[in-house]
Amino acid sequence: MLWPSGIRHSPIGAVILTSGEIDHVAGLFSLRERHPFTVIALRQVHDAMNANPMLEAVRAERLVATPGEPIALPGGLSAMLFPVPGKVPLYLERGESGLAYDDGETAGVRLTGKGGSIVYIPGCAAAGDDLIREAAKADVLFFDGTLFTDDEMIRAGLGEKTGRRMGHMPISGEGGSLAWLRDLPRTRRIYIHLNNSNPALIDGSPERQEIEAAGVEVAFDGMEVVP
Amino acid sequence: MLWPSGIRHSPIGAVILTSGEIDHVAGLFSLRERHPFTVIALRQVHDAMNANPMLEAVRAERLVATPGEPIALPGGLSAMLFPVPGKVPLYLERGESGLAYDDGETAGVRLTGKGGSIVYIPGCAAAGDDLIREAAKADVLFFDGTLFTDDEMIRAGLGEKTGRRMGHMPISGEGGSLAWLRDLPRTRRIYIHLNNSNPALIDGSPERQEIEAAGVEVAFDGMEVVP
Repeated sequence: MLWPSGIRHSPIGAVILTSGEIDHVAGLFSLRERHPFTVIALRQVHDAMNANPMLEAVRAERLVATPGEPIALPGGLSAMLFPVPGKVPLYLERGESGLAYDDGETAGVRLTGKGGSIVYIPGCAAAGDDLIREAAKADVLFFDGTLFTDDEMIRAGLGEKTGRRMGHMPISGEGGSLAWLRDLPRTRRIYIHLNNSNPALIDGSPERQEIEAAGVEVAFDGMEVVP
Repeated sequence: MLWPSGIRHSPIGAVILTSGEIDHVAGLFSLRERHPFTVIALRQVHDAMNANPMLEAVRAERLVATPGEPIALPGGLSAMLFPVPGKVPLYLERGESGLAYDDGETAGVRLTGKGGSIVYIPGCAAAGDDLIREAAKADVLFFDGTLFTDDEMIRAGLGEKTGRRMGHMPISGEGGSLAWLRDLPRTRRIYIHLNNSNPALIDGSPERQEIEAAGVEVAFDGMEVVP
């Protein structure tokens, strides 16, 4: 693993990507061209990036993670990526069948170090028993809170797709994430990746209250999570 | 030309690109995916972008500009692109011969409207008579101020390339831009695109004073240019 130093030192030594979607990858373009750092992702996400010559100038070591196998990071940390239900990036969708389950297009990551662990899953189309077990082992869980209800984009006139069609299970309703998150009281649970249509963004809204009553938090800009 | 409206309206109707380099193109990734707007550029810059599937999701009308031919824009404006000496984007460089002169990899643009005009040239490896004539016709000229001296990156230990090798003529010295910019007193002249190694960024530095003594300005964040 590379670890940069020098006049143009950057403290960023590695980037872990759980998806090839633009909102996950485009941040690489803000890093210095031809500056060494390591990009860690599953094979499918590397393949999506490698098809773009523009990303070659963000010259980085590319580390292909094996699902379920921990990768040692500096500082005594380790990262383990695992596939979760999701879909190919929007720019690779062909036709209507955007969904692909558990094949590595979308991942979660478990970061472990100093006796604690966090699990980070910013996009997830459905939660099976294995995923819920993995989440329950974390001290802190960051989970996909894109939409509160599956059809909220359609009802607001903002789009033609359900959340699940976009690779995001809703927070509420049957099969929503709150139904099982409320049953993991030993884990600190925080919704992330909220779409601007999500009423849970509004402090004090009924939707926010429903989340908080279940013991789950909503992330905010500048949030710090202290062990 | 597309002109967006609706709930997720953006005031950005068109983007003019004078280069395919990452620092020119990556801003597109901050615009909404599959939202209509027009990208205007010369053929070579469109070709560089089209090779990247990731840019397909920033679904825009693509308008290939013909060098020297004005394109009508809303609001009574028109834009005319013209090739300037430059090079292919860093991510397309193969081997050492990165320079390509006047073939459309790098462009300037003249924007005309309401009786006035600006010329914008953020990257330029050399200035010939035609380019200087085009610049002299503008009311306001924004010009490549990347480096003050051609070898300043090398001397500072920041890189192995001269400015010209990176497609940027220096401000100072023989063949530098200040030598001819000082002779265009009827045009308001503003240096843009300054690298962080450029001592002209420092208010009151000898280099800044040399520029100002020639009647040329250095742009700053938040600068507004009023007719």
